[in-house]
Amino acid sequence: MPAGSEFDNLRVVLVATRNPLNLGAAARAMSNFGFLRLRVVNPYHVAFREARSAVGASALLKGAQEFKEIAEAVSDCSLVVGTSALRSRELQHTLRPLENGAALIRKHLRSQRVALLFGSEKVGLSNQELSHCHWLLRIPTREQHRSMNLGQAVAVCLYELARSGKTRSQSAKPPTANGSELERITEVLLETLRASGYLDPRPGPSADAKMRRLVRRLNLQTDDAELCLGMLRQILWKLRSQD
Amino acid sequence: MPAGSEFDNLRVVLVATRNPLNLGAAARAMSNFGFLRLRVVNPYHVAFREARSAVGASALLKGAQEFKEIAEAVSDCSLVVGTSALRSRELQHTLRPLENGAALIRKHLRSQRVALLFGSEKVGLSNQELSHCHWLLRIPTREQHRSMNLGQAVAVCLYELARSGKTRSQSAKPPTANGSELERITEVLLETLRASGYLDPRPGPSADAKMRRLVRRLNLQTDDAELCLGMLRQILWKLRSQD
Repeated sequence: MPAGSEFDNLRVVLVATRNPLNLGAAARAMSNFGFLRLRVVNPYHVAFREARSAVGASALLKGAQEFKEIAEAVSDCSLVVGTSALRSRELQHTLRPLENGAALIRKHLRSQRVALLFGSEKVGLSNQELSHCHWLLRIPTREQHRSMNLGQAVAVCLYELARSGKTRSQSAKPPTANGSELERITEVLLETLRASGYLDPRPGPSADAKMRRLVRRLNLQTDDAELCLGMLRQILWKLRSQD
Repeated sequence: MPAGSEFDNLRVVLVATRNPLNLGAAARAMSNFGFLRLRVVNPYHVAFREARSAVGASALLKGAQEFKEIAEAVSDCSLVVGTSALRSRELQHTLRPLENGAALIRKHLRSQRVALLFGSEKVGLSNQELSHCHWLLRIPTREQHRSMNLGQAVAVCLYELARSGKTRSQSAKPPTANGSELERITEVLLETLRASGYLDPRPGPSADAKMRRLVRRLNLQTDDAELCLGMLRQILWKLRSQD
């Protein structure tokens, strides 16, 4: 069923997962639906060791890549999508229902890498973690019981991804900037805003996250990302040379 | 979201489930998607007791009805659908992919009761058990790894049931900046780039057009346009104040 190479462009990224059973369940659903590349960020080490060494643990789980920081785990992906059970008004990102969001992800997967992030069982993705995302995906659960079990959420998202867009072909879009390019822009933008007095000179996590989200919303093509970085660097140089 | 009475016509029937965690997971997915009526047939008694008495066990699980035989558990349902990971040639039933099958189930639920059966973790539904079904549903998993975890299979089926036949809901997208807002940004950006030395100080039509196109490609939301304009104005003010 799946176009192998498209599916190969997805990275399922589990952030701070605590329960080895959930790691195993996520890996199983990935294998069921044909998405074989798992990354884990800062997992509870006992859980990760236990899940990997469990009888019947899959090659997929054994081959999972481990990262300390989200920024590293998504650095080669040009679209980063988070999952969240929160309401739109509690979030500072565009929130798309799974069906629509999955169709967008599928389009992107035709030519480029996508990271799909799942947060920890207790608290989901933090604001800091969400700030690495371009937009968020929500599984349409009931208002009275929104939060899903992690392994089940992974299964439902991957089912929808495998299902959606199976037919329609699309025109190729220009390549989109990846995580490390966007992070570089974010850093130079923050420096520039501090040098100009727009932001308080002392780094603050909430301003950083706000600007990181803004940069992701711009949906920059690779060429434009380079252009913006060049502008910002020149502006920053000029601001500093005049001090 | 769901039409309460329609969803109220579904009976999720778990047959010979062995693992209390799977009972709990199935109940959780039911609650997530708004199907609240669980029936269990001949469960392993220890598992059922344990699942029911678990901390946080839902009212849904506590209220599950228990039956000795499938025949009793489906006696008030006019459509009985089994789930199976087997191939069509191994089965004597019509096998429908989940998406199509779910649409049929939804139609039926408008006026009549439907039972959706899930077999035990190890062997699924036996031929004897399947014989109570009108037809079967298959989740489109990979040929190389067809069999899903029970709790995940329940979640995926109920997601598709809740999704299908719904008139497509749209994500409310934030308003996008209009032409005059974008033009204001373009102007201040050009001034800033000239003040910083990035662009030649004399206005030139080709640089202007290039920047205008760039600003349009960013696809700015109204709020973000305002934010960007504020940043640019501050940077421009700072650049000029230092000359």
